[in-house]
Amino acid sequence: MGEASSSGQVQRSHQPGSALPVAILGPTGYTGLELIEIILRHPMLRVAYLGSAREKQPRIDVEFPRLAGRLKGAGGEIAPMCEPLDHDAIARRCALAFLCLPHEAAMEHTPKLLDRGVKVVDLSAAYRIKDQATYEKAYGHHHTDAKNLEHAVYGLTEVARAQVKTARLCANPGCYPTAAGLSLLPLLKAGVIEPDGIIVNAASGVSGAGREPKPNTTLVEAGENYSAYGIGVHRHQPEINQTLHMHGDGPGLAPMGKHEALFVPHLLPIERGILETIYATPTSGKVDTARVMEVLTHAYAGEPFVMVRAESPTLHDVQRTNAVHINARVVSGRVVVVAAIDNLVKGASGQAVQNANVMLGLPEVMGLA
Amino acid sequence: MGEASSSGQVQRSHQPGSALPVAILGPTGYTGLELIEIILRHPMLRVAYLGSAREKQPRIDVEFPRLAGRLKGAGGEIAPMCEPLDHDAIARRCALAFLCLPHEAAMEHTPKLLDRGVKVVDLSAAYRIKDQATYEKAYGHHHTDAKNLEHAVYGLTEVARAQVKTARLCANPGCYPTAAGLSLLPLLKAGVIEPDGIIVNAASGVSGAGREPKPNTTLVEAGENYSAYGIGVHRHQPEINQTLHMHGDGPGLAPMGKHEALFVPHLLPIERGILETIYATPTSGKVDTARVMEVLTHAYAGEPFVMVRAESPTLHDVQRTNAVHINARVVSGRVVVVAAIDNLVKGASGQAVQNANVMLGLPEVMGLA
Amino acid sequence: MGEASSSGQVQRSHQPGSALPVAILGPTGYTGLELIEIILRHPMLRVAYLGSAREKQPRIDVEFPRLAGRLKGAGGEIAPMCEPLDHDAIARRCALAFLCLPHEAAMEHTPKLLDRGVKVVDLSAAYRIKDQATYEKAYGHHHTDAKNLEHAVYGLTEVARAQVKTARLCANPGCYPTAAGLSLLPLLKAGVIEPDGIIVNAASGVSGAGREPKPNTTLVEAGENYSAYGIGVHRHQPEINQTLHMHGDGPGLAPMGKHEALFVPHLLPIERGILETIYATPTSGKVDTARVMEVLTHAYAGEPFVMVRAESPTLHDVQRTNAVHINARVVSGRVVVVAAIDNLVKGASGQAVQNANVMLGLPEVMGLA
Amino acid sequence: MGEASSSGQVQRSHQPGSALPVAILGPTGYTGLELIEIILRHPMLRVAYLGSAREKQPRIDVEFPRLAGRLKGAGGEIAPMCEPLDHDAIARRCALAFLCLPHEAAMEHTPKLLDRGVKVVDLSAAYRIKDQATYEKAYGHHHTDAKNLEHAVYGLTEVARAQVKTARLCANPGCYPTAAGLSLLPLLKAGVIEPDGIIVNAASGVSGAGREPKPNTTLVEAGENYSAYGIGVHRHQPEINQTLHMHGDGPGLAPMGKHEALFVPHLLPIERGILETIYATPTSGKVDTARVMEVLTHAYAGEPFVMVRAESPTLHDVQRTNAVHINARVVSGRVVVVAAIDNLVKGASGQAVQNANVMLGLPEVMGLA
Repeated sequence: MGEASSSGQVQRSHQPGSALPVAILGPTGYTGLELIEIILRHPMLRVAYLGSAREKQPRIDVEFPRLAGRLKGAGGEIAPMCEPLDHDAIARRCALAFLCLPHEAAMEHTPKLLDRGVKVVDLSAAYRIKDQATYEKAYGHHHTDAKNLEHAVYGLTEVARAQVKTARLCANPGCYPTAAGLSLLPLLKAGVIEPDGIIVNAASGVSGAGREPKPNTTLVEAGENYSAYGIGVHRHQPEINQTLHMHGDGPGLAPMGKHEALFVPHLLPIERGILETIYATPTSGKVDTARVMEVLTHAYAGEPFVMVRAESPTLHDVQRTNAVHINARVVSGRVVVVAAIDNLVKGASGQAVQNANVMLGLPEVMGLA
Repeated sequence: MGEASSSGQVQRSHQPGSALPVAILGPTGYTGLELIEIILRHPMLRVAYLGSAREKQPRIDVEFPRLAGRLKGAGGEIAPMCEPLDHDAIARRCALAFLCLPHEAAMEHTPKLLDRGVKVVDLSAAYRIKDQATYEKAYGHHHTDAKNLEHAVYGLTEVARAQVKTARLCANPGCYPTAAGLSLLPLLKAGVIEPDGIIVNAASGVSGAGREPKPNTTLVEAGENYSAYGIGVHRHQPEINQTLHMHGDGPGLAPMGKHEALFVPHLLPIERGILETIYATPTSGKVDTARVMEVLTHAYAGEPFVMVRAESPTLHDVQRTNAVHINARVVSGRVVVVAAIDNLVKGASGQAVQNANVMLGLPEVMGLA
Repeated sequence: MGEASSSGQVQRSHQPGSALPVAILGPTGYTGLELIEIILRHPMLRVAYLGSAREKQPRIDVEFPRLAGRLKGAGGEIAPMCEPLDHDAIARRCALAFLCLPHEAAMEHTPKLLDRGVKVVDLSAAYRIKDQATYEKAYGHHHTDAKNLEHAVYGLTEVARAQVKTARLCANPGCYPTAAGLSLLPLLKAGVIEPDGIIVNAASGVSGAGREPKPNTTLVEAGENYSAYGIGVHRHQPEINQTLHMHGDGPGLAPMGKHEALFVPHLLPIERGILETIYATPTSGKVDTARVMEVLTHAYAGEPFVMVRAESPTLHDVQRTNAVHINARVVSGRVVVVAAIDNLVKGASGQAVQNANVMLGLPEVMGLA
Repeated sequence: MGEASSSGQVQRSHQPGSALPVAILGPTGYTGLELIEIILRHPMLRVAYLGSAREKQPRIDVEFPRLAGRLKGAGGEIAPMCEPLDHDAIARRCALAFLCLPHEAAMEHTPKLLDRGVKVVDLSAAYRIKDQATYEKAYGHHHTDAKNLEHAVYGLTEVARAQVKTARLCANPGCYPTAAGLSLLPLLKAGVIEPDGIIVNAASGVSGAGREPKPNTTLVEAGENYSAYGIGVHRHQPEINQTLHMHGDGPGLAPMGKHEALFVPHLLPIERGILETIYATPTSGKVDTARVMEVLTHAYAGEPFVMVRAESPTLHDVQRTNAVHINARVVSGRVVVVAAIDNLVKGASGQAVQNANVMLGLPEVMGLA
């Protein structure tokens, strides 16, 4: 998984006022709030633009009262009023924009921002799937920006660090694919598991469904409950399968294979967190727990956010951190990997800041420790 | 609180097929589901009509999959398809109708059902407030059925049993007023607490807000959260104050007094249950814990659903039962009463069945034990 | 899965006082409470003995205040005081005993009860595993009652109904194996899935861990959390594998096979409910969703408690019922079965009453509808 | 409420390695974990000593796996192994110690640390109650360090800032008293509420009960539940009443009055957060909502952590922040104040760091923004 170069070291001495200005477009959802809270602690980023598509511009500390009195951050102060999505104004004030917009809106605004020299970290799915037809089938709408899709970098940071460094457009990975990709890629590359027959049994907190109320996300319906959904047809299934073919900082993405991993997500009665219990077939009888742990430990040596652990992790171990905790073992003839992340942090806004740090030449862990 | 006459005794021997047919109008909300589940266990009631105002009639075991395979009840089987609100058909088939409709719809359908000889237990607020102007101010719409409002009986069963017995229209009490009324009325009647300065600090599960998703009832917003709402302006405040003037099976409701009790509800991050912590001023320094407990114990001796307890109750003690658990004490110069109910049972559908039992001449506890 | 013969029909007319007396030994745990609440609604069973091993005998409605005032059941009244475990007294008063005791205690008391002619439904694991060595390895203690182990009937009712009917000792199945067995057995028998490579990915509410507080079961630790545990080494793994070899009401249990199913349980942040997401390999490319659904639908036609559904179930669909909801499909080349039960009902006390009904010649669904 | 002087301004430029070394004694409880997580983000504090009384010294990132890989903080790195409580070693390495120990242990270690020149912020209740007899009655044990009790400063920072500045021993306030004191003191001082008849109806998350499992804190018992406890007899009742007599940075604490506020806490089914709904009598009919809000707004102008809000707060508004959100109104003749804090942050570890910042001459908000 390469080297986190200088990123293991937090560079803390800097000049006040020197923080880099960034925009958050679509800040009124859960990933927007999470980005704001992360950046308030980031000594070298400053939110200089909150852009909303709403008719009536919201005030962010009214939208989220927990921000009241807390908009003075380490990198500078955030003006609470949201503004319209004015590309010129954004370009004048910001070096980079985080897009927390719906997929279609992301495809509309991204080219205009890139044309004006603004780097983009897109938290929607718009630029994640390289194959346009696959994207359109999964998401049910036309892809309107094939041009930028081509050079977009899929920002699974630990795998694609060198590419992210030079990216102008970073497609921030989906929450489920982040955990699946980081768990499985080293094992696939080391040849200890078969690419065939992989099962990604996953469970996520309700924040993954967004802030909009839905009949199945009320406390009465989702609380004290648990269920599978989108069995084998979830939009993250093709993204996971694409991720399993990443070559990392090598020659780029390999063509989609015929070995489809099966993805079965479940809805947990909690706010946040994803736990994936992944089943794979060892390539030989010699692959044991020691071997799979060795592969993972070696792959993530020096990685600041990936903890390879001897015990199976819980969601409490990773909530509100950018960490990925991974455990693996061989039991009853199968490899079982358990990986935990916070879907709003490493699965969204945390990884987005990690990618922005890399794109802007800042220490990778800055603001995320 | 009178005598539960024969109600302490469950009459269980009866002829198969002899169950009384009832209708549930508006069965797709939480009180509808709760009614169905209660009546499925009731040996002498049978749901003979599920009436919905929806354009496309729902099938109740699709609407609530937990009913699948469970529609064969103790009193007979329920046909799963809902039907339109046809008053003649209801009258042909049912002796009594439970209305789980919006307030305005309840005022529309109640007179037509009463005219056709169908008894009504209305779970909406339409007939609860005797003073029409107070109702209209609290609910923000015109009361369209003043005629029936006059003779409607407010069905706080333990207090108004004799009136409920002869009622054709029973206004089933609100959840919060049920707990407040049962807690305070014996103390007020015994003269041990002042009518002035009562504070009803209450907390309810989210099911009290209904089944419709709302921005503040999603698991992400309501979970791991707690807040006060409608402080002093909640619709149940006038109902509570009216309830505190009930004379029970005496001469009827007294005129509203000037001593307004203050009601402050809170939203709990749970599905169901109401706990009220009630503060009142003792009428003299001689009123101590022993005295208030004695008043309550005496008032509820023989009542099957009211437990006066030496310890403060928890919601687990009453959830999914028709019980009210009450504890009282005098501390730091104030009377503190803690009362717990299940808002969907004693606070809605359970008390509705209790009232229907009384109205139909069945043992009061039948189906509720 | 045989015929539920007369069990689809609730026999309701009976003589008051004619209910059969049963004992609950170890009633102060969650399965004990659940049994009491079920039997209170059962018209033909009456709890005539609450037996506790505690030094100081508890009063059951103090132990569980939610029982206060609710001990008058459909089949008769329960005396609230627990009594010592006196086998003679139990035999004098009861036809059958439900054992909610620790495994070792179950092995101690069962022979003494059987010797005195009391039928036993044992909710512990003591008599579930036919192979004594397997039991002893899984549970870490010696099996002290091999004699009765031999004739004990594993009470997965839908599969072993005829055997249960004549059983004197019924080993009530574990919660996880109940859902796994009912899901997989028809598919295995119909030859549509391979016996090799089965994965049972399961999740359970915290009540499965018992009532004793543990460091990982506090609300702070278990709430808003989720984790895998006992991966491949859980005690239910051998029980599941034994269950997958049941021949039902045929010639008895087949010898344990070499095809070990892998069982991976998870801890859900809820009180109750088990959802199992089960992965298996279809035996041929012709096995599709229609075929697996047909097999299940046919197997459970007429079964009152097993619902084969077109949609994947949620835990809300089954909580506080004795139902099993099963959905199956073929996707990405694998059979995916999702099954839901309430671990305290069909996974424990509900199935125990179902078995007791069969053993006592009562309608199988009585008290459980 | 004074001036937060330079504290509104985060001083960020500093030399690496210049962070002040502090000790955390008793770091394996919830306040210990919270302190560690706060200090990891604090640019000028560094945990140089983790002191545990356990026989076998725990490794903090094994005790709390969420700390794995996260011990490199803004102020420096934390050595993961805990050490014995060696006062000399602590004095050699640390300028200040946070005590997260039991009350008795705090009284044992505090004098020894003070004698060695180590400043102490004590998170136990040992030094909170000025009147020794009151303390001993509430806590049931002898106070063994009357000498230091005398000069200990009760660290309700906003009220006692000047005293905290020169304190060597700071008694960090209890969670409930923090919210009650900050809500009521300005209203009492402004003379808009009567000191008599105050009711503090409060609700707290389960983390307030500590990390030790208890029968009533398991997820099964505490989840989906709510109850009052310690009605009028909770240990925080005398602390609240003492707090209501604070003169702030004036001449010191006034003698305890005869006007006892009544405190009624409740247990919420959540991890963290305290909401207090406080009832008081206005001193005249002229005291209206505008007046009480004006008093609070004026009192807390410029205070970085106290938000006086027009709406009633929710716990989500304050969880994981050091903020206090306060709303007040006059309704039905009573003043109703609603205040929210995070019991582990402003109610414990956050306020402890706030006090330490003041005691060490650092900006008051440092590490807490």
